[in-house]
Amino acid sequence: MSNNIQEINEVQLPFQGGGGLVGSSVKVFAPATVANVVCGFDVLGFAVNEPGDEVIMRVTDKPGIVISKITGDDGRLPLDPTKNTVSVSVQHYLDSIGRGDIGLDIELHKKMPIGSGLGSSSASTVAGLFAIKTLMGDTTDPATLLPFAMKGEEMACGHGHADNVAPALMGGFVLIRSYEPLDVVRLPHPKDLWCAIVFPDVDVPTREARQIIRNKIAMKDAVTQWGNIAGLVSGLFMQDIDLIGRSMQDVLVEPVRSMLIPDFYKMREIAMSSGAVSFGISGSGPSVFAFTKDEETARSITQKLQAHLTGIKIGSNAYVSTINDAGPRVI
Amino acid sequence: MSNNIQEINEVQLPFQGGGGLVGSSVKVFAPATVANVVCGFDVLGFAVNEPGDEVIMRVTDKPGIVISKITGDDGRLPLDPTKNTVSVSVQHYLDSIGRGDIGLDIELHKKMPIGSGLGSSSASTVAGLFAIKTLMGDTTDPATLLPFAMKGEEMACGHGHADNVAPALMGGFVLIRSYEPLDVVRLPHPKDLWCAIVFPDVDVPTREARQIIRNKIAMKDAVTQWGNIAGLVSGLFMQDIDLIGRSMQDVLVEPVRSMLIPDFYKMREIAMSSGAVSFGISGSGPSVFAFTKDEETARSITQKLQAHLTGIKIGSNAYVSTINDAGPRVI
Repeated sequence: MSNNIQEINEVQLPFQGGGGLVGSSVKVFAPATVANVVCGFDVLGFAVNEPGDEVIMRVTDKPGIVISKITGDDGRLPLDPTKNTVSVSVQHYLDSIGRGDIGLDIELHKKMPIGSGLGSSSASTVAGLFAIKTLMGDTTDPATLLPFAMKGEEMACGHGHADNVAPALMGGFVLIRSYEPLDVVRLPHPKDLWCAIVFPDVDVPTREARQIIRNKIAMKDAVTQWGNIAGLVSGLFMQDIDLIGRSMQDVLVEPVRSMLIPDFYKMREIAMSSGAVSFGISGSGPSVFAFTKDEETARSITQKLQAHLTGIKIGSNAYVSTINDAGPRVI
Repeated sequence: MSNNIQEINEVQLPFQGGGGLVGSSVKVFAPATVANVVCGFDVLGFAVNEPGDEVIMRVTDKPGIVISKITGDDGRLPLDPTKNTVSVSVQHYLDSIGRGDIGLDIELHKKMPIGSGLGSSSASTVAGLFAIKTLMGDTTDPATLLPFAMKGEEMACGHGHADNVAPALMGGFVLIRSYEPLDVVRLPHPKDLWCAIVFPDVDVPTREARQIIRNKIAMKDAVTQWGNIAGLVSGLFMQDIDLIGRSMQDVLVEPVRSMLIPDFYKMREIAMSSGAVSFGISGSGPSVFAFTKDEETARSITQKLQAHLTGIKIGSNAYVSTINDAGPRVI
């Protein structure tokens, strides 16, 4: 974070009158995120180094937000600023600081698949918010942008959850301890924890993936789940990758959502027999991810999973990354 | 723990033939424990410095276990060695090491109330197991006794849970991440975390307290609960007492079990307005406990709670303690 704040200072944009900002521009990258993290449904997430989205934002002399360009979305995202999560959350932010009248031109460059379970809308939203924060010379903690980012999520997914936006915004591994009031805790993690992600190119809309989850669950399953999340959090603090792996079991959500993912259990078998520490669904899927203890194992697992998907005629994207502690950054 | 192992070495009792042990004796204290810890139903517990139980164990020349004396139980506990949790778990241990034929005389001195929600049976069982382990010169980690202690719990409470026996045996703050397979994690805690315990002298049998808990719960409540347990575990690792306090909320078990405890919510109000960090039920109750940041606050809270209970004509016991990291010890 401090690097970004440094850059803000260099471009000399402290909070100032509107006129002086016209023509200022910034380009920001914000990372993809893995939410839920198997046993932390709705409360855990972490950021990765790639993929991610880019926003180019320019202050104009004409009040209001214009989305002038979106690339990489196959025409799926709205250019209408009242319907796009980026502009909606940026507008909320501007309204909150009494600058709702400012003129902005936004370009959104999607560098990651939409509907992948990797926090695609969060990455865009966070990139937009970090861009406007940078332009406004706002040097407060990026975490203060969380409520605005959640507004964007609410529009994109039908619920204002924070398990993608919080890690995208703050970087690292993040716990959303509570939503009301919002209480977010940044967790440590082993530096040598690698993440292998594979996105099978099938359609699993977030809303539907949420609707199939049971509303009522057995207390004994909930006890299993919170034993596991407590174990995962302990493993993160203790830098104990084996404890992390043992704890990453989901008896509640995965058994249902895995039905929407082609050959999920076969992919698990491939990953676990190839040295993965854990394997599970990223967010609401269809992306899957494995933790490993080194890069080589992570790469080997993505290759094997992609080969398997090719064998059943499903295209895929793969990413290998450590956990991204920086969050969004000016590029 | 190392202190205890030291004492074992001093009395010169390494694993040896049966005859040489006859006449050897040991006196052991094992601590009371607070299980569940508000948001960690069935998976969290910690040990306190007082109260606790004592066992005096002597090797005799007549095969089989005799319970020669029990004090402090008002005649409620069985002297029959096949029905007492202490002798049953000790017998399991002896059978497991092929010494089921050894003769033992056991005195159990209850120094804490029975049916209090403070792990009374666990304290006795652990004292017995630590005594026989000491007599046998068994220097393995006390945690290895956990399966035997759980046998005792199973008989006492109708279920083999470990959230009292594990902290009584290992000391400190303990997470039972999983029961099958058994996976126990010792958690750190702030050194200046004080615990104020009040036992209102009313009857809440463990079995009944368990039976009133709902079998089916709402997913959204479970999410709240595991956000909180993840927050509590984070707070323990981060030595962040405020985060610990914020996280200690129970939307699932406390709303039901609190009905069995006289003026539970009034007591909470008294504790929280007197500087408590958190307040909740110990185990299945009726004991309640508060965390505080210092001893003085803890003592003031126990006094106010006891005065309130006296006002509604309910007797009580109170204990003030930091968390006991040592577990059982030879005295």
